[in-house]
Amino acid sequence: MIPVKGYAAQNEKDPLGPWDFERREVGADDVEIDILYCGICHSDIHQVRSEWRPGIFPMVPGHEIVGRIVRVGSHAVNFKAGDLVGIGCMVDSCHECPSCKSGHEQFCEKGETVWTYNSVERDKKTPTYGGYSNKIVCNKDFVVRVSEKLDLKGVAPLLCAGITTYSPIKKWNIGKGHKVAVLGLGGLGHMAVKFLVALGAEVTLLSRSESKKQDAQRLGAHKFCNTKEVEQVQPLKRYFDYIIDTVSAPHDYDFYMSLLKDNGVHICVGLPPGGLQLKGLPFNRAITGSSIGGIPETQEMLDFCAEHQITSDVEVINISYVNEAYQRVLNSDVRYRFVIDMATL
Amino acid sequence: MIPVKGYAAQNEKDPLGPWDFERREVGADDVEIDILYCGICHSDIHQVRSEWRPGIFPMVPGHEIVGRIVRVGSHAVNFKAGDLVGIGCMVDSCHECPSCKSGHEQFCEKGETVWTYNSVERDKKTPTYGGYSNKIVCNKDFVVRVSEKLDLKGVAPLLCAGITTYSPIKKWNIGKGHKVAVLGLGGLGHMAVKFLVALGAEVTLLSRSESKKQDAQRLGAHKFCNTKEVEQVQPLKRYFDYIIDTVSAPHDYDFYMSLLKDNGVHICVGLPPGGLQLKGLPFNRAITGSSIGGIPETQEMLDFCAEHQITSDVEVINISYVNEAYQRVLNSDVRYRFVIDMATL
Repeated sequence: MIPVKGYAAQNEKDPLGPWDFERREVGADDVEIDILYCGICHSDIHQVRSEWRPGIFPMVPGHEIVGRIVRVGSHAVNFKAGDLVGIGCMVDSCHECPSCKSGHEQFCEKGETVWTYNSVERDKKTPTYGGYSNKIVCNKDFVVRVSEKLDLKGVAPLLCAGITTYSPIKKWNIGKGHKVAVLGLGGLGHMAVKFLVALGAEVTLLSRSESKKQDAQRLGAHKFCNTKEVEQVQPLKRYFDYIIDTVSAPHDYDFYMSLLKDNGVHICVGLPPGGLQLKGLPFNRAITGSSIGGIPETQEMLDFCAEHQITSDVEVINISYVNEAYQRVLNSDVRYRFVIDMATL
Repeated sequence: MIPVKGYAAQNEKDPLGPWDFERREVGADDVEIDILYCGICHSDIHQVRSEWRPGIFPMVPGHEIVGRIVRVGSHAVNFKAGDLVGIGCMVDSCHECPSCKSGHEQFCEKGETVWTYNSVERDKKTPTYGGYSNKIVCNKDFVVRVSEKLDLKGVAPLLCAGITTYSPIKKWNIGKGHKVAVLGLGGLGHMAVKFLVALGAEVTLLSRSESKKQDAQRLGAHKFCNTKEVEQVQPLKRYFDYIIDTVSAPHDYDFYMSLLKDNGVHICVGLPPGGLQLKGLPFNRAITGSSIGGIPETQEMLDFCAEHQITSDVEVINISYVNEAYQRVLNSDVRYRFVIDMATL
C-alpha cells in the first residue's frame, strides 16, 4: 500500500482536517500520480455535508485533479513517469457496456461508474478518496493528458467545471452563427462564456447582479442583460438559439423559455434542489440536462483549451484554508474557482 | 351578411343549444364553405367552460371542420365551388411576419393569430364562431384541401388531433429505425400510432389501462406496456428514441424519462393543469412541447393521410347529442373522436 497525506471530512458536520491514509499499489492498468493542484467544486460541499445522500466517511473530496505521473503499470503503455495528467469525476467503470465503449462512462449501463470520491471501487466495498491529497492511483483509462503549455493552476477546474459546460456545447454543435445566453456567472458560467467565445458564438450573459457586467465583458461576452430590468429583457424575447443555464437556485424556467427562438434549446447544467417546474409547455422549444462528460470528450476539451489558451480563473489557496474557502463558495465569493496548491499539504 | 345555423354555449354553465347568427359576406380573399362534419375536441369543453380563460359568449365551438366550398372571392383563385376542404384551429393571422411567412401561423409574431372560435378577428373586436354550424366564411390562406379518396367523417379530427401529433413527428424526423412510445390512447394517441406505423417506426403504446391493449394492436402498435406492471416496464428502461406524450392529467415525467435512450426526446402534446415537473435533470434527454402545426404542414399531413388511407376512428353523432358527447369525452368514453354530422343541424 502507498501512504498518502490528505485532507478529510470525518463526518458531515465537522470542518475538514489533515488525515493520513493509504492507496492501493499500482496495478498493471494503473498509474500513480503526484497531485499538484485540486479545484474545489460546489458539489464537494454538498457531499461532505451529506446533502445529496449519506456520505462515506472519512471523505477526501476533490475531483478536479492535476498532477504528474510518477509510476505506471505494465499495461499503461501510453503513459510514462513525468507526464502531466488530469483526473475528473470518475476513476473507473465497467469498460464494456455500450455507454462505456462509446466514451460515456458516466452513464455506465452496468451501474459500475466509480466516482473519484464518496464512492466505492468496482469491488463494491473499497471507498474511493479524492484529490485533496498528495497522491492518487487510478486506472489508466480514466487519466487524461494535460498540455505543458497551460497554466496548471487554472487547468484543475477544467476537469469538472470545464467538461460540464463543454460537453453540451459540443453535443448541440453550438458555435458561429448562434446567439447564446449564459445564465449565471460562476465556476460553470465563466467557463461557458470562454468556450462559446472561442467557438465564435454571440454570447450574452444573463444575471440578476449588475456587478457581473464588467467581468462578463472581460471574459469576452458580447452582451450583458440584468434580468431584473424589464427594458433590458424586452429586446431579448425570442432572441436566443441556446441558453446554457448554470444556476442551481430555484428560478423561473418559463421566463427563460420566452427568450428562446423557435427550436431553441434550454440546457441545464445545474438543477435547483426542488427540481424543474414549467407552468406552460415549451412549444417548439426543448429543455435538456447535461452532466459532466465522458473521458474522450474530456481529453478533447483539454486539447481545445491548449489550442485556445483557455483556463479557469482561479484563486489559489493553501489547503489549511479549505474550510474558509467552502464558506466563501457558499457566499458566491470567488472568481471563479478555488484551487488548492497541494504543495501546502 | 350570411345567415348561419349553429349550436352555441350561451355561457360557461348551461348546455349547448341551437343558435342562429350571421357571418360576413365573402370578401375578395375569402371562401364560403358548407360544413359537412365537425369533430369534438377536448379543448372545446375547456373553452365553453371558461377553464383556460373567460370565454367569449355566445360561443360556437369547433375547429375540426370539413366541408365543401360553395363560393369563392375574386382573389381565391386556387379554389372553386365544389372543392372539398378543411379548416383547423386558425382562420387568419398577419400573413407578413417571419413565423407566418414560414408557415407557422400559430406563432404569429404580431400576435394576430385568429383562432377559429372563442377569438376575435384581426379588427380585435369581431368574435369568431367555429364549426358547430352549417356554414363558415374563411380567409383562403387558412383553408386546406381534402382528398375525395378519404372517408370524410374520419377526416374532420385530422384538422386538430391529426396535425397536433403529425407536426412533432415530422419535426423530429421520426420514422424507420426509431423506437417510439405513445403515451395514452385517446384522440391524439390513436392518431400518433397511425402516423408512426405508416412511417415505419416501431411503436409501443404505454397505458395504465389494460383495456387499451387490443385496440393498440388493431391500430398497428407493435408492443403494448401496462405501465402499472413493473415487469412490463423493466425491459423498456432506456429503450425509446422518442416518447409522444398525449396525456394531460398529472403524470410522472421523471419515470418516462427513464424509458428514453441517451439523446432521447420526450415530446408533450398535452399538458397537465399544474404544468410540468421534473425532480431530476433530464441528462442527455430533452423534453419539448408541441402545439398544432402551421397551414402548409396541415396540408402536407392531409396529403400524407390520403396517400396512406389514414383517418381518425370516429363515432358520428347528431348535433343534438353534443352535450352527452361532452360528458362522454370527460369520461374518456369515446373511441376515439366524436364527429358531428352537420346535416342533423
